[in-house]
Amino acid sequence: MRIALCQIDATVGDLTGNAARITDFAGRAQAAGAELAVFPELALCGYPPEDLLVRPGFLAAHDAALAELARAVPAILPVLVGCVVRNELAESRGGRPLHNGVALLHGGVARIVATKTLLPTYDVFDESRYFEPNPAPERNVVAIAGRRIGVVVCEDGWNDERFFGKRIYAVDPVERVVAGGAEIVVNLSASPWSVGKDAFRQRMVAAASARHGVPMIYVNLVGGDVALQFDGGSLAVKPSGIAAQPVAFEEALAVVDTDAPWTLAPRLLPVEAMQRGALVQGIRSYVRKFGFQKAVIGLSGGIDSALVAALAVDALGPTNVAGIGMPSRWSSDHSVVDARELAVNLGIAFHLLPIDGLQEAFDRALAPVFAGTPPGIAEENLQSRIRGTLLMAFANKHGHLLLTTGNKSECAVGYCTIYGDTNGALAPIADLWKTEVWGLARWLNRDGVRIPVRSVEKPPSAELRPGQLDTDSLPPYPVLDPVLRCLVEEDLSVAETAARTGMPRERVADLFAMVMAAEWKRNQYAPTLRVSERCWGGWRLPVAHRYRER
Amino acid sequence: MRIALCQIDATVGDLTGNAARITDFAGRAQAAGAELAVFPELALCGYPPEDLLVRPGFLAAHDAALAELARAVPAILPVLVGCVVRNELAESRGGRPLHNGVALLHGGVARIVATKTLLPTYDVFDESRYFEPNPAPERNVVAIAGRRIGVVVCEDGWNDERFFGKRIYAVDPVERVVAGGAEIVVNLSASPWSVGKDAFRQRMVAAASARHGVPMIYVNLVGGDVALQFDGGSLAVKPSGIAAQPVAFEEALAVVDTDAPWTLAPRLLPVEAMQRGALVQGIRSYVRKFGFQKAVIGLSGGIDSALVAALAVDALGPTNVAGIGMPSRWSSDHSVVDARELAVNLGIAFHLLPIDGLQEAFDRALAPVFAGTPPGIAEENLQSRIRGTLLMAFANKHGHLLLTTGNKSECAVGYCTIYGDTNGALAPIADLWKTEVWGLARWLNRDGVRIPVRSVEKPPSAELRPGQLDTDSLPPYPVLDPVLRCLVEEDLSVAETAARTGMPRERVADLFAMVMAAEWKRNQYAPTLRVSERCWGGWRLPVAHRYRER
Repeated sequence: MRIALCQIDATVGDLTGNAARITDFAGRAQAAGAELAVFPELALCGYPPEDLLVRPGFLAAHDAALAELARAVPAILPVLVGCVVRNELAESRGGRPLHNGVALLHGGVARIVATKTLLPTYDVFDESRYFEPNPAPERNVVAIAGRRIGVVVCEDGWNDERFFGKRIYAVDPVERVVAGGAEIVVNLSASPWSVGKDAFRQRMVAAASARHGVPMIYVNLVGGDVALQFDGGSLAVKPSGIAAQPVAFEEALAVVDTDAPWTLAPRLLPVEAMQRGALVQGIRSYVRKFGFQKAVIGLSGGIDSALVAALAVDALGPTNVAGIGMPSRWSSDHSVVDARELAVNLGIAFHLLPIDGLQEAFDRALAPVFAGTPPGIAEENLQSRIRGTLLMAFANKHGHLLLTTGNKSECAVGYCTIYGDTNGALAPIADLWKTEVWGLARWLNRDGVRIPVRSVEKPPSAELRPGQLDTDSLPPYPVLDPVLRCLVEEDLSVAETAARTGMPRERVADLFAMVMAAEWKRNQYAPTLRVSERCWGGWRLPVAHRYRER
Repeated sequence: MRIALCQIDATVGDLTGNAARITDFAGRAQAAGAELAVFPELALCGYPPEDLLVRPGFLAAHDAALAELARAVPAILPVLVGCVVRNELAESRGGRPLHNGVALLHGGVARIVATKTLLPTYDVFDESRYFEPNPAPERNVVAIAGRRIGVVVCEDGWNDERFFGKRIYAVDPVERVVAGGAEIVVNLSASPWSVGKDAFRQRMVAAASARHGVPMIYVNLVGGDVALQFDGGSLAVKPSGIAAQPVAFEEALAVVDTDAPWTLAPRLLPVEAMQRGALVQGIRSYVRKFGFQKAVIGLSGGIDSALVAALAVDALGPTNVAGIGMPSRWSSDHSVVDARELAVNLGIAFHLLPIDGLQEAFDRALAPVFAGTPPGIAEENLQSRIRGTLLMAFANKHGHLLLTTGNKSECAVGYCTIYGDTNGALAPIADLWKTEVWGLARWLNRDGVRIPVRSVEKPPSAELRPGQLDTDSLPPYPVLDPVLRCLVEEDLSVAETAARTGMPRERVADLFAMVMAAEWKRNQYAPTLRVSERCWGGWRLPVAHRYRER
């Protein structure tokens, strides 16, 4: 059977645009001789639609778009597409009003052939907020072109007790559709990428194919939805090997024949290439979703802003990126030199807006309430806020979107000034630990220096007072990051983290308290592009609480 | 049977403090002759604990605190207290690892006697993220002092098909515990207040008592958790009447005798009194949770900042509130006069920090990138950001928490400057429509003018350019607010809203687009004290999407 894996980029809420894309791909699939075209989870409305799903007007528009789509795709080609499904039993029996389902478009009509059983409600996922689970996944088997196709949706494929070593949910829908007679299993997914996820999915899908002795057709979304970056990573696997592996972070159409031999070995990109791919896609899609073409970045001469600028250039092109240097009386000589060198390397515009005059003007303006007090945090933050205000002024005036340059280490401990350097509509690298920032910067320089070597190598400093270094307040990042990884990404306790890393328990406890106390800043932070399995969007701590560990 | 309703204020994460409070109330209940003391839902860890629940260290600390609490409360007094419960079946059968449950503390030990069946996962609630539902609520019946007590938890009481006119969930746990033999039903709740909720709960609990012919003991949390304001509203109801109604927004202990006649009629406060109670509690608890005593507010002479200042004074006392006037070249004469009059009325400190010099300094600093451009939004926003920066400088220097003063109408349409007037750690009135702001201000003035009459009566203006009025960009608020209520609080479509309000459909569509386009600002907004059933914390739209209605 010839099946088309349609790895498309669907935009949340863009029912018309997504339907047009599906129609286009279905036409191409038919032209390529496919007997079935498979699209990702919720491909019609985009993923995740969040509270658009509680708006009856949106649901009505969705249903109309689905009916229209069924008429638009080639009538003779069966098409499986992820869509929202009404739970007809909710009114009489109770339960959530919707399902996350799959329509078979064929002969001009849409017929619901499957609904999702396992609804991820953890990390960045909130599906139980909207959807009722399918109590009988074994019924998700549909005859298409003489074959019995088992249809599962994303998380449905993530509960193989043998693969995971434990049962996560009560039911394994893949097992059920095979028990229900499926000869081929298709999984319509919207699985966002994080480090290692691409390799993990390949192993998991291959394990399911081997266990059940059926071809697995895994079709995943591609493209960026604010924080979440879908890499595609679609895959056709039989116990004997792989038949298709579309390129990551790009739309793709791959037609496979389940009756032909499949012998390819898995192919994976280096982690830095995947990180770059996710971040570049994330910047590009976010900036364009807001109707912008251009981005502006404050360039300090340091590594964080340099990396963001390089990624922005890869996403938008050098003519669409502007850098602004804003030296103060405390800035090092090299800060402007390095920023300018970066701008030259990247081929972007660079503007210099010194802030000394503004510092003096604020000193005068604040004299009635600051007189007689020693300089401190208030003055340090003020510099950062002057810069944030200049950047937003430039952004507003010239139609740029401001990118904020904080990294995950800073966000974790709150080493940033809210309404200052945190200003920005998107945080491209706030899910990269500082040590990862260096790693990715070096990787971007692998074929020639784009980020100045001094920016990569100099000791980190906020330069908010003379001679300041990050290590005045924090341990060196190679020491700090492993501790923060334990506390933030692994949810280890202070005691466990101390045992694991060797840092004294009291020092770990101080860092834990800093992490907890910074929640109010993260709560007002820009959306952060997801790179790790525990990004800030999936970290939902109370903004204020009194839990402390020692 | 003498039952103590223990309406306590529990702080999220404060296991030690909450246990001490429970111990104190249990001692007082015993002294008052109670045979059973009932505490709210999750009283030991506070509500909602959010992702603290995914930290094994927190769960271990919780379990240790529960065991210790069982030894601390009077051994002879049975105590029902809401707590986190391990789902022992999760490892073998799959499912969420926890239950939201109830422990019976008696004789020095804690025994789990109930777990929650209905897990709210909508609006501000995310319980399916953490908890596995109880599949057999009829077993939540425990013998205490010779009576069979049915135990349900919050949402378990919110599914009476006869009362609601429809089935929301498949199971009605109150019906089940009565079928399971309960003679008395206790409901341990953490139900946050919103307008009308207090009256609704009274009717609902009374209806359950009448339907099942049993006394209902409803014990609700009081106190503020960031956005959510718990009003208490605990209640003992029999078909014949009410026995106890502790005061709203205060901790209370009420002992009722289920065998005595109960004849009180329901008592409710005016909506403005409840709004004020919620907002004052919210400001006080939030400021103190951050270890602050003081708050600062930018005073424009307008109604929004005046109302916030008055509420802050009621929450913190006049000596703990500072107002700052920051007139620009475009400010009206009355802006400073009215702000100063407010400060005098409220007895708070008032500082004047004119921004003309800063505007000029920014004009100079930005000349390299602004030269030759006409003044516009960038310059308007700049004024707002200068003010936001001055306020944060004052806050940082003097240890104040900055309150932001935006209302719900502005937040809805994005009529605010991000990193400017949106600066602040808490948004006290961003869930009040502008028309409600006027209403509450007038109510606060009912016994004498606190908020200057001109602030209440003058036409709203951001004063960012000469002669500017809100009505230059927006319909008058009495016209705008009903439209926004339809779009935001009732999820009506553009067409339905136009039909309901009489506003032309194209104009409604423009407002809908403004609401959707402002999501990125709301996403970086301070936590907003919840007043309505659809506050921003419960409104979870995608930050960027392409759904539009016309």
